[in-house]
Amino acid sequence: MSERVKYLLGEDRIPKAWYNLVADLPKPPPPPLHPATGKPIGPDDLAPIFPQAVIAQEVSTERWIEIPEPVREIYKLWRPSPLIRARGLEKALDTPAKIFFKYEGVSPAGSHKPNTSVAQAFYNKEEGVKRLATETGAGQWGSSLAFAGSLFGLEVEVYMVKVSYGQKPYRRALMETYGARCIASPSPLTAAGRAILEKSPDSSGSLGIAISEAVEVAAGRDDTKYALGSVLNHVLLHQTVIGEEAMLQMADAGVDPDVVIGCAGGGSNFAGIAFPYIREKLAGRSHARIVAVEPTSCPTMTQGRYAYDYGDTGHLTPLVKMHTLGASFVPPGFHAGGLRYHGMAPLVSHVLELGLIEPRAYAQTACFEAAVQLARTEGIVPAPESSHAVRAAIDEALRCKAEGKSETILFCLSGHGHFDMQAYTDYFAGKLKDVPFDRAALDRALLELPVVDEN
Amino acid sequence: MSERVKYLLGEDRIPKAWYNLVADLPKPPPPPLHPATGKPIGPDDLAPIFPQAVIAQEVSTERWIEIPEPVREIYKLWRPSPLIRARGLEKALDTPAKIFFKYEGVSPAGSHKPNTSVAQAFYNKEEGVKRLATETGAGQWGSSLAFAGSLFGLEVEVYMVKVSYGQKPYRRALMETYGARCIASPSPLTAAGRAILEKSPDSSGSLGIAISEAVEVAAGRDDTKYALGSVLNHVLLHQTVIGEEAMLQMADAGVDPDVVIGCAGGGSNFAGIAFPYIREKLAGRSHARIVAVEPTSCPTMTQGRYAYDYGDTGHLTPLVKMHTLGASFVPPGFHAGGLRYHGMAPLVSHVLELGLIEPRAYAQTACFEAAVQLARTEGIVPAPESSHAVRAAIDEALRCKAEGKSETILFCLSGHGHFDMQAYTDYFAGKLKDVPFDRAALDRALLELPVVDEN
Repeated sequence: MSERVKYLLGEDRIPKAWYNLVADLPKPPPPPLHPATGKPIGPDDLAPIFPQAVIAQEVSTERWIEIPEPVREIYKLWRPSPLIRARGLEKALDTPAKIFFKYEGVSPAGSHKPNTSVAQAFYNKEEGVKRLATETGAGQWGSSLAFAGSLFGLEVEVYMVKVSYGQKPYRRALMETYGARCIASPSPLTAAGRAILEKSPDSSGSLGIAISEAVEVAAGRDDTKYALGSVLNHVLLHQTVIGEEAMLQMADAGVDPDVVIGCAGGGSNFAGIAFPYIREKLAGRSHARIVAVEPTSCPTMTQGRYAYDYGDTGHLTPLVKMHTLGASFVPPGFHAGGLRYHGMAPLVSHVLELGLIEPRAYAQTACFEAAVQLARTEGIVPAPESSHAVRAAIDEALRCKAEGKSETILFCLSGHGHFDMQAYTDYFAGKLKDVPFDRAALDRALLELPVVDEN
Repeated sequence: MSERVKYLLGEDRIPKAWYNLVADLPKPPPPPLHPATGKPIGPDDLAPIFPQAVIAQEVSTERWIEIPEPVREIYKLWRPSPLIRARGLEKALDTPAKIFFKYEGVSPAGSHKPNTSVAQAFYNKEEGVKRLATETGAGQWGSSLAFAGSLFGLEVEVYMVKVSYGQKPYRRALMETYGARCIASPSPLTAAGRAILEKSPDSSGSLGIAISEAVEVAAGRDDTKYALGSVLNHVLLHQTVIGEEAMLQMADAGVDPDVVIGCAGGGSNFAGIAFPYIREKLAGRSHARIVAVEPTSCPTMTQGRYAYDYGDTGHLTPLVKMHTLGASFVPPGFHAGGLRYHGMAPLVSHVLELGLIEPRAYAQTACFEAAVQLARTEGIVPAPESSHAVRAAIDEALRCKAEGKSETILFCLSGHGHFDMQAYTDYFAGKLKDVPFDRAALDRALLELPVVDEN
């Protein structure tokens, strides 16, 4: 029993504050712009859809933002999450590298998403909101908000992309178990939905349409607000508990990472593990390389343009400066639904521009291969999204082996794959293909980027 | 942060030995009998299908059996499992009772089953076995043995009841992710399977048939053994880590249980939480009532007869004395597949006869109602089997409320329901019915019990 596997922390070591990277950046991130005026937006522009406390966090430049006590109380249900030394994987790879992962799949909804859904539900409840509306694709975010809503007595209405609503009935069942209402989008309940259904009664929906429906519901009712699961600053902020805890646990393990890895779709779990380490790098206290992993099918950071763009296909959101494939770019179907977003979080894009992180892209079959290797050595079946971080960690460990270096690798395993077993079935049946990236489609989508005067 | 939610233990506090209740019983349990001779069976009778170390544990009267170091090393992947104070549930019930649950769903396969699958895989590997054959119904056991096999480099062949093979493709995908081969039973690979298929090409299979196939494969090949997931003494033994850890954690919490609850199908998770407490009761160190919960659709303890019976429908196994509905009794279809067994573990049956435990039966809709209440207050979606324990814990807490007593309730939450969401979908759709127990069918099945001279 000499070698430890899990590094656990007591509940008293759940962080007392979220970390806001904006406070420490050498250069502030470009502001979001109003789509009509092209001028920076103010808090009032967001008031119809977000509670005041969330808006204040979105624009805050404070370094530390206190985590309210009731949020920390709920975090106790699964936090601090474990840091695990992947000894079985190390042995299978025969690598001199030490591999650690921070496992966020222990949350009730099975991913890192409740770190922010609980916070958002709390602030909404505090401000008298009765109901939250949101969209979901694969269902990770919808089920996380449903969970948070159940604890605070908030009604939750989830607009789920119709094709996923049909394909993923068990994610929907999970939302309903938590008491949420799950609606196939486009729906007849909103003007946005009805407009689509009139033109295309058989529309299979899209995240863009579902966002429009949820925002419309939130904007149209005083008792209802909107909640978003990634991309925006306040969401990334709430996820920093991941990195703050990991840092304490790595210290308990007596190691300091040489490489920190996270998968990145909207950017929230990546920011969660990475931003605290970026702070340490900026302060000269860490030398870690920080790697953000995306799919080759939706390569915002490695193939996209850093430009102002809309967050949704319907062009209802503010313009934000980010690495984008263009709001009209439609990524091919693949199994990591949580990584199928045309843009990257503005704050993640900003640190990429500043040279503080390394982007990397992988095709999905290579990621499933890594996921299966993790399952057979560590027991955990990763979510397809998280498998991108696993792939990068394995490749770094193999590089260490080739170079004879015993580096320390830390990655975020953002969620489990219990609701994604169809993807594994397809993988074993040889049905998953790596679709070559459609450069021409990207070029077309980039031509449609809005023209913005940045001066 | 004053009130703790989780009681965790360091890896150094994983038990060093399994506890064998047989050593402390006031009266030894009746021996298993050879089906042909009616005489007590000896170790040699079991040698074709089990490794020697497992057979020795099956008949052992030693109080403590050391857990091999490599097994404890693997236990570290998820053990010690957390003990959780269900403060959210207590609040929702407005009860003065304290409710604690030991959560076994944190294991890689999502239930308590790996506590024994890892041990069984270890002993087989030690004795040079290359391949394990087993049966599975709903898939909990098959995926747990698949996980254990992947860690020890053993091939695993799982005969899965054909109707479940079709209905639960994701449990099958989980087994395949762990590298196991999953075969729909009846299959053309065994004589037992072929015999059924000749008569009934469309047979949907049964646990009895699947057992016959797996035992045939194990008995017929020198490099292959059989592994069982419940019922037998050695399986119950391996599960005692649950209760031993819980006892340490309850001490950390400064409480002693007044009621200890587990669901019981074959009896293994129940024995795991209960047997250490039965030891304490017998020694006068605990006053806890110990409650075993079964489904009203398959009520072995509350409606069955305590008699010698076969473990399988094919009458290939030894005769064991247990509470049984008769090996030919076919329980109606319901969603807690893990509780659909015609008998109860002989050792659990024995302590029931000795008056050391209280049996209780619940209908499934009442259990799903309890499961949903747990999900909405504690975040965890229970397996349908485990929901029986949740129902009993809630009822005990409501009794405490009615009586104004602040008792301490401990239950085992044996697994999560991530692979059982169809059951929740059916529940919300109002499709689950509580079928009245068929007393006449029981009477018919009991008429077929073998005649055994017990003197």
